[in-house]
Amino acid sequence: MTVPSNAPEFASDLISYRPDIKVLDCTVRDGGLCNDHQFDDTFVKRIFNTDVAAGVDYIELGYKCSKRIYAPADFGRWKFCDENDLRRIVGDTPAPIKIAVMADAERTDYHTDILPKDKSVIDCVRVACYINQIPTAMDMIKDAHDKGYETMMQLMAVSIVPEDQIKAALDIIAKSPAAGVYLVDSFGALYSEQVRKFTKMYLAAMEGTGKDVGFHGHNNLQLGFANTIEAIVSGANRVDATISGLGRGAGNCQLELILGFLRNPKFNLRPVLECCRDVFVPLSKKMDWGYSIPYAITGRLNRHPRDAMKWRAGKTPDDGVAFYDLMMEEPG
Amino acid sequence: MTVPSNAPEFASDLISYRPDIKVLDCTVRDGGLCNDHQFDDTFVKRIFNTDVAAGVDYIELGYKCSKRIYAPADFGRWKFCDENDLRRIVGDTPAPIKIAVMADAERTDYHTDILPKDKSVIDCVRVACYINQIPTAMDMIKDAHDKGYETMMQLMAVSIVPEDQIKAALDIIAKSPAAGVYLVDSFGALYSEQVRKFTKMYLAAMEGTGKDVGFHGHNNLQLGFANTIEAIVSGANRVDATISGLGRGAGNCQLELILGFLRNPKFNLRPVLECCRDVFVPLSKKMDWGYSIPYAITGRLNRHPRDAMKWRAGKTPDDGVAFYDLMMEEPG
Repeated sequence: MTVPSNAPEFASDLISYRPDIKVLDCTVRDGGLCNDHQFDDTFVKRIFNTDVAAGVDYIELGYKCSKRIYAPADFGRWKFCDENDLRRIVGDTPAPIKIAVMADAERTDYHTDILPKDKSVIDCVRVACYINQIPTAMDMIKDAHDKGYETMMQLMAVSIVPEDQIKAALDIIAKSPAAGVYLVDSFGALYSEQVRKFTKMYLAAMEGTGKDVGFHGHNNLQLGFANTIEAIVSGANRVDATISGLGRGAGNCQLELILGFLRNPKFNLRPVLECCRDVFVPLSKKMDWGYSIPYAITGRLNRHPRDAMKWRAGKTPDDGVAFYDLMMEEPG
Repeated sequence: MTVPSNAPEFASDLISYRPDIKVLDCTVRDGGLCNDHQFDDTFVKRIFNTDVAAGVDYIELGYKCSKRIYAPADFGRWKFCDENDLRRIVGDTPAPIKIAVMADAERTDYHTDILPKDKSVIDCVRVACYINQIPTAMDMIKDAHDKGYETMMQLMAVSIVPEDQIKAALDIIAKSPAAGVYLVDSFGALYSEQVRKFTKMYLAAMEGTGKDVGFHGHNNLQLGFANTIEAIVSGANRVDATISGLGRGAGNCQLELILGFLRNPKFNLRPVLECCRDVFVPLSKKMDWGYSIPYAITGRLNRHPRDAMKWRAGKTPDDGVAFYDLMMEEPG
């Protein structure tokens, strides 16, 4: 993917819009990391119907995790996304939205669990990996591509990867059949200036290949939406968002904010606001996600949010001082 | 003010810091807009002590409003900032932090209520006005300057002012004795690209005058912190923040986030986290501020947040759909 030649220097003139930008709603997939993917069909169908009504391009419904590694009794069905579960949500006729699933490197029996495209309602397989898993991820991309899927590459945790290794990975991805690569801010640690730098690096590495560059942010520093805009301004044309920001830890870029920013008339904000009111306001009384001080601390320290998640689930979730002291005691 | 010649292209290299950047905590002043300035001394003293311990450069304690216009019985004392009230917080000895107050154009009896500097603990008078009040504001700046104060100019609501009028106002401010001018995003409606553009316009207008350019953001689109960073990256060297983001409507840039970003060793984050835990976590159960859907809607529509504030105080604060429909019915 290259930035369209008519793309304005700054995101937009705030009146027109970029028709090339595609939005993926990963509420069910990233939100599933908050509750071991224990969403009932009513919830998932509501998200699906909301996204269709809102004109969102893709919906990601979960992972294709290995049942050898994760016992199905311990997780909800969206950890595995069996074909019959997907079809109960999506229906048998072609959906007016593309269906995506995430496949984690070394946690997916991809040869068997990802069916040939003509046997599945899935459109897009997003392969997620850490830097040391690039060879495995490339095999997964090839496998899914050969089976007939659009494939996307999610290289995670790049805020702690040396730049030369990221570049080497991008060179490999550029030669793969992946339709694109995402800049993934797993720790919610990137500031806008870094998002700009990385996005331009990713675009340069993909130049001439026709591949897209996307962005997946987290809200640990309350920059989920801001960084998503920055990625767009810098030339990315795929963005991830979740309704009400539901997602691991501090959550993600809010779908309701990014649709408002994009202004493409194919998007409708109102169904998303309805879903926020009907589903997410009640859910927020029962589940803990979104920005809070512990996430700001791990974000600032460029660390995985797992310590902050543990803290928020503990006895003193609002004692940011004790958490700060703990993090200062345990470098890195 | 000009950007220091050694300022890196992007905010920082994320390791060093810019020693020229000054932080003003306006928790008591902007937060007072949430409760008619009814803060007790215990609260205000805690904010004061926190800011001193945190190494914050300025604390703004309230307004110097006219008692002819606002009945003292209807408001807390921080609407007026009488000298004896200030001294009860600040003490009689020179404080280790600069004391600021805000004076609104046409709402302040500045000739009488702003004392000569040698009779006051105030260091800095920040004059706030709308575009049509520039002549009055300039008289207020001159009055306070002649009395011995540092003065700063806050031109409000620029997101709805034609650009040529903003430029004309900046030319007038450049010739005034004001120590600087703030870009003020009153409606929390600016995206980062606009913050960059405005900040550069303000800097260009002040070039060669030695005046500072500052930024005061709001969090309606959850961009309060992000936009403050962008202003810094673009060359601003004064920023406003509030503890836990307390402030009108969706609130302001969080002091705890901006201190973490700035990295100047003179700042200490821990006292701010203590204050968040001890004061603002309990307060958040009693007072409504911070990001929510109604503010996102007024921010996106570039409108004053007053309708959203009214909605949040009403019977269905979480019905963002009904509020959206209402706003769509009533253009501008």
